[in-house]
Amino acid sequence: MLEESLDKIMELLVDKQYFRARDELLKYNEADIAELLEEIIDDSGIQMAVILFRLLPKNISVEVFSYLPSNDQVDIINEITDKEITYIIQEMDFDDKIDVLEELPANIVDKILEKAPKNERKQINTFLNYPENSAGSLMTPEYISLMKDWTVREALEHIKKEGIDAETIYTCYVKDTGRKLIGIVSLSTLVVTDDAVKIKDIMVTDYIYEDVDDDQEEVSEDFKKYGYLALPVVDSEHRLVGIITFDDILDVMEDEATEDIERMNGVIDFDDSDRGYLDTSVWQHALNRLPWLIILMVAYIFTGRIVTNFETSLSKVIELVAFMPMLMGTGGNTGSQAATLIIRGLATDEVDTDDALRVLWKEMRVGVIIGVILSVLNYLRIYFIDGIHNPGIALTVCTSMVFIVIFAKIIGSMIPLIVKKIHLDPALIANPAISSVSDAVALSIYFAMAQIFLPI
Amino acid sequence: MLEESLDKIMELLVDKQYFRARDELLKYNEADIAELLEEIIDDSGIQMAVILFRLLPKNISVEVFSYLPSNDQVDIINEITDKEITYIIQEMDFDDKIDVLEELPANIVDKILEKAPKNERKQINTFLNYPENSAGSLMTPEYISLMKDWTVREALEHIKKEGIDAETIYTCYVKDTGRKLIGIVSLSTLVVTDDAVKIKDIMVTDYIYEDVDDDQEEVSEDFKKYGYLALPVVDSEHRLVGIITFDDILDVMEDEATEDIERMNGVIDFDDSDRGYLDTSVWQHALNRLPWLIILMVAYIFTGRIVTNFETSLSKVIELVAFMPMLMGTGGNTGSQAATLIIRGLATDEVDTDDALRVLWKEMRVGVIIGVILSVLNYLRIYFIDGIHNPGIALTVCTSMVFIVIFAKIIGSMIPLIVKKIHLDPALIANPAISSVSDAVALSIYFAMAQIFLPI
Repeated sequence: MLEESLDKIMELLVDKQYFRARDELLKYNEADIAELLEEIIDDSGIQMAVILFRLLPKNISVEVFSYLPSNDQVDIINEITDKEITYIIQEMDFDDKIDVLEELPANIVDKILEKAPKNERKQINTFLNYPENSAGSLMTPEYISLMKDWTVREALEHIKKEGIDAETIYTCYVKDTGRKLIGIVSLSTLVVTDDAVKIKDIMVTDYIYEDVDDDQEEVSEDFKKYGYLALPVVDSEHRLVGIITFDDILDVMEDEATEDIERMNGVIDFDDSDRGYLDTSVWQHALNRLPWLIILMVAYIFTGRIVTNFETSLSKVIELVAFMPMLMGTGGNTGSQAATLIIRGLATDEVDTDDALRVLWKEMRVGVIIGVILSVLNYLRIYFIDGIHNPGIALTVCTSMVFIVIFAKIIGSMIPLIVKKIHLDPALIANPAISSVSDAVALSIYFAMAQIFLPI
Repeated sequence: MLEESLDKIMELLVDKQYFRARDELLKYNEADIAELLEEIIDDSGIQMAVILFRLLPKNISVEVFSYLPSNDQVDIINEITDKEITYIIQEMDFDDKIDVLEELPANIVDKILEKAPKNERKQINTFLNYPENSAGSLMTPEYISLMKDWTVREALEHIKKEGIDAETIYTCYVKDTGRKLIGIVSLSTLVVTDDAVKIKDIMVTDYIYEDVDDDQEEVSEDFKKYGYLALPVVDSEHRLVGIITFDDILDVMEDEATEDIERMNGVIDFDDSDRGYLDTSVWQHALNRLPWLIILMVAYIFTGRIVTNFETSLSKVIELVAFMPMLMGTGGNTGSQAATLIIRGLATDEVDTDDALRVLWKEMRVGVIIGVILSVLNYLRIYFIDGIHNPGIALTVCTSMVFIVIFAKIIGSMIPLIVKKIHLDPALIANPAISSVSDAVALSIYFAMAQIFLPI
């Protein structure tokens, strides 16, 4: 349905029927409108999208804006007037506002801040100074505060008055006079409790909270573990400085998964901008991918040496070269299977560095099973498909296969645990390291077997 | 802190001081107690953990139970009495109950169902029949229903009475007499609206909903897109059959990410049980990893042929063999970098199959930059480190490097898009396919360059 509307809108835009295109957009909710606008920016350029964006009712355009990815937001900001910018930024939820300001160039931020009321300017500046990816950078100051001596009725009346501007009213926070957080009450408790009961008698005092400097990964772990809608963020003196709501964590979880997946495959995002693939420049892409390739290249100097040392023997039984790609490839792939499972297990807390011996024992057995099966299949291949009836070659390849798989499983599972033990990120180091080590091990095993089974 | 308590509890358990161990556990909230119990099961076995579990206050033990991973739940069920099982299952939230029942053997499920009230038995049976990973399998029937002619005051009174048993009271659902969903009201709207206003005047009618057969991945996409706390689930006649709350989606998101990561590295979870690494049997591990290794092995028959065809030439310039591992390794790794970025881009909707040409153009340029840089570094390595001053070999290796990187980037980025275009899962097919294709391409390029630059 979204697809059809997009085609229709594109046609209307070509015919310069902007108002009819706008009406088509307005059939959808804000999240969908944002998705359509994204497509329009990609296909017809930013100018066309901005024309449409300006035709949206003001309150809707603010919502739509906050659903757009940050690079599209910056592009729109660059196209609209200062007055429009100021309006949008003023109307946005506080945490969305901070997200946008973080991405904008300093001169535009200054211009926007000039127009903000003094109090808010100060607050925005404080929030902009929290380190990226910290709890502080995710939070919003727009929460409901209650006093401990209020009754439930007073609290509900307060919420009725203040609720509109809060990010959530489902969790309310009780502070003492020194702004220290002393308890939490959920709206559901308020709603099911009698009007005359005091807040201090129903508030929860052993609540979970985050420190303002906590990494967003820890924050998202807590959301996953406890399943709360929102978590309070406190400073070093336990003063409540903001709250984080679950919807901001969904994005964090996705970004963290992306980072892990990329790192596991040798891509390091030096830019750290959460920019998408298509919006990242060619040079940035090259920079993100080069480091591991260069490190691997250096590692391959040693692999090259192993081959060179064996060159004379190889030239005697040149058929051996044909099996090198398969043995190295199988070793690398089977090692990275093991590494992947362990790295993911570490990330989801299913595996711990203390489990090293259990992992080792498991991988050795898995390695034996897989190694023997692949080895038997290989023997059949060599005999029937390749038609090589020299038992020395078959024995060399098949015994190598068993040992290579077992060693690759051991290396692949142990390296992530070791990396984790020394407090580095296993996703960052494990797979590329494994792919080079396993090649060297595969070739060493292969050549050792050749010396046993062949007259060289 | 959790670590210290765990050590303390372990010591107390060794001394058979069960009550003191229990008191130490009770310092924590239910999610943390569950985490500690998990560790105790891993380290001291299920019997020890069950002793502690039984000493917990009944209401807490139910909560703790619902936080445990499903294999630990099944283990505990196997150790406790039928009466205890019935109590726990009865007290659990409906959706957690279904999750547990799905994992239990049929005879235990029957025993539990016998003891349930007739109505609930029917409902449980319905829910157990929804396909795994469907919206139906995630939902709970415990939601708040309102009537459209009620006033806000009547609605709030209803919530006060019924709210305790609902999974969430923050979103309430309005049904017509035929049980069809006609609108949604959030508790925040109710709380900030005057008492006399009618529900039908404030309910939202263009709400987002899921079909009972929708895949959990689509459901989690909607949660990410809209940021709602809960989404209603309807059947084919638009009757409201249940709701899904965001906390169940956090688990789905993690499981989906794990599945993607594993598939991208050639591990297919045939078991599909969400069992952790350590709880999966050695045979299951072997089964999950063998298919791709076998397919790769077959693919390497062709790679082997490429080498065999070049054997005579290789034996003349045997030094060429030493660079094979590096060229194949670099090709494989750089191809899988590109594939990873595209697969992840497809998963997060940042890249679309329509973007194929833009991706191709970008990867070609990235390939040229990386290829040239690696090639220059390689030349220096060959000349200064390996001390090979034969310009033919240096030229062969260095020009091969440039072409291999460019081709690997193209193959790595295009295969996922093609796989997606034919509606298969790119994560499942791309990386292993790429690692075999890129080896064949790397060797073909290398040998072609050798024929140009060397007298063979």
